[in-house]
Amino acid sequence: MFRNFKLVPNVIFGRGCFAQLDEILSHQRGGTDAWTVFVVDDVFRGKPLEQQIPALENDHILWVNVDDEPKTSYVDQLTLDVKALNPALPCAVIGIGGGSAMDLAKSVSLMLTNEGSSTLYQGWDLIKNPAIFHAAVPTLSGTGAEVSRTAVLTGPEKKLGLNSDYTVFDQVVLDPELIQNVPKKQHFYTGMDCYIHCVESLEGTFLNEFSKSYGEKSLELCRQVFLDNHPDSDDKLMMASFFGGMSIAYSQVGACHALSYGLSYVLGTHHGVGCCITFDALDEYYGAGVKEFRTMMDKTGVDIPRGLTQDLSEDQMETMITVALGLDPLWENCLGKDWKTIMTRDKARDLFLKM
Amino acid sequence: MFRNFKLVPNVIFGRGCFAQLDEILSHQRGGTDAWTVFVVDDVFRGKPLEQQIPALENDHILWVNVDDEPKTSYVDQLTLDVKALNPALPCAVIGIGGGSAMDLAKSVSLMLTNEGSSTLYQGWDLIKNPAIFHAAVPTLSGTGAEVSRTAVLTGPEKKLGLNSDYTVFDQVVLDPELIQNVPKKQHFYTGMDCYIHCVESLEGTFLNEFSKSYGEKSLELCRQVFLDNHPDSDDKLMMASFFGGMSIAYSQVGACHALSYGLSYVLGTHHGVGCCITFDALDEYYGAGVKEFRTMMDKTGVDIPRGLTQDLSEDQMETMITVALGLDPLWENCLGKDWKTIMTRDKARDLFLKM
Repeated sequence: MFRNFKLVPNVIFGRGCFAQLDEILSHQRGGTDAWTVFVVDDVFRGKPLEQQIPALENDHILWVNVDDEPKTSYVDQLTLDVKALNPALPCAVIGIGGGSAMDLAKSVSLMLTNEGSSTLYQGWDLIKNPAIFHAAVPTLSGTGAEVSRTAVLTGPEKKLGLNSDYTVFDQVVLDPELIQNVPKKQHFYTGMDCYIHCVESLEGTFLNEFSKSYGEKSLELCRQVFLDNHPDSDDKLMMASFFGGMSIAYSQVGACHALSYGLSYVLGTHHGVGCCITFDALDEYYGAGVKEFRTMMDKTGVDIPRGLTQDLSEDQMETMITVALGLDPLWENCLGKDWKTIMTRDKARDLFLKM
Repeated sequence: MFRNFKLVPNVIFGRGCFAQLDEILSHQRGGTDAWTVFVVDDVFRGKPLEQQIPALENDHILWVNVDDEPKTSYVDQLTLDVKALNPALPCAVIGIGGGSAMDLAKSVSLMLTNEGSSTLYQGWDLIKNPAIFHAAVPTLSGTGAEVSRTAVLTGPEKKLGLNSDYTVFDQVVLDPELIQNVPKKQHFYTGMDCYIHCVESLEGTFLNEFSKSYGEKSLELCRQVFLDNHPDSDDKLMMASFFGGMSIAYSQVGACHALSYGLSYVLGTHHGVGCCITFDALDEYYGAGVKEFRTMMDKTGVDIPRGLTQDLSEDQMETMITVALGLDPLWENCLGKDWKTIMTRDKARDLFLKM
């Protein structure tokens, strides 16, 4: 059985195309009561981007804070906030920001039409009803959240996404001008999320030519951005992220993402930097990729935090291992069907102790 | 203004995935009266593929002949045939074959819900109503018809497609096993359609990073197929075609496609071989591409017909030139906004005389 892969059905790409969001939204706005929620990273509050958001009188800008990774409790609260604004459901939910803001927008658009807490839907294909029309406007590139079928959430018991075909955005607006002023560290960490998940996909056992074609081109674009410092870096990183997401969608990430989920769950480490910290400890599994990653790190002059696990309690370490080893498909992609005999709890502990 | 590009929303890729069409169709089959039309190239009549078509009792296999390129009159007749089969519209139209069969399936799915002759809709965005759910199962790779927003038809006055977002398939089933027995010449001509439209796209003035990423990877895959004779050639050519189509969708073809339309209109030359014949005369515009094309031709041992235009009447030549020069966007992509001062009727005549 092969996956019948759900693609984002509409994509607009171009410098300045954010200005066309208004026209795109006009096709969703039916009657005069129709309204839209813009789920926007609060770093843009009071910044020039705020003025560019095409909000009409009935619309609402929902500022979201992503200092912490998105939590199920936060999604549940945001959903209640949106319901309290208007007795009618919005006609559209637009996520503007990086992976976390996009995942919050996906989650809210799903939870407006699916009853109960978002914790009920952490897993694969548990969502019952289609979401509200939802679109993404990335202001950071690398996560692939703009094309993925998941919205990654940390719940009381696990870090696990709302994985479903309904999660996929209905529209993506790819405007390279929006990522031109990203701070250097964040630019690197998020770009490396893309680089790393392409390596994981290409080295994985699930690979087919569909994922391979996307993954290889994404890696090549990452190299142009982080090794060659190409003048069209913003355009290229935006496409690398899109292709990287497409590659994963038909394949799977691997050991690095699995371990980084443990790190994030226990220490709250952000996804991008968490992937970098983890990847740097994985020479044994992704030798050539880790070497090239270190060259990119040198070139951009960004360093990663170290010594994160030295003060962990035994309980924390056990939790970290349990969360990481709970992601079966990722391990199977990396190590094959017999992964449990290779990635034992002791082996995972050794890897965490290097971080 | 950038185009808000409509993608095929569901794609399944894998060796043997054609067997999953039945399950995919089950989601479209509503009541017990629901029925499906399979629009199938008649070269498969009595062949093993016929037995694999998941047709149920109410369904109908509409064998289509593509010895000639699809005509508007043929589409109109096929549409009437489908309407005569059942007073209710089908729930799905499935195209199985190469570019021509896929374009016929697209056209029928559109004409079942749009009144009058298909000649009324030759052009850009003239289609008024959404099509019947339509899916493609390519048995030939290269044209990009599986992802394009056009269904190319020859009408009484012009060769011009039904270009619209509604034309795009709702589902594509990419099974590399289905293209493994394509005759050598056809394999080459159709593959070169992909190679050539990537060159046209990458050398064109409309190019952006979206189209570039897809076009470059498609070219690379074509090289692996036609220069390196890669063992996974079927998988690679299928992805090359998909990527090539994606590249064009956000860009445009160029001089070769424009001239080849004139050739097809007057002489009925099939699209793939017509592109090869034309491209071989375009050193002046696509120097490196034409050189590599000739190497691929040598490697595969396929030759192209020559001397096609030597016996043309003056009227025929004039028509050929008029049809070719009528494709403004293709010429603008190739030569820029002032293309009319460069590609005069005399210049076009000189090029046709080389073929």
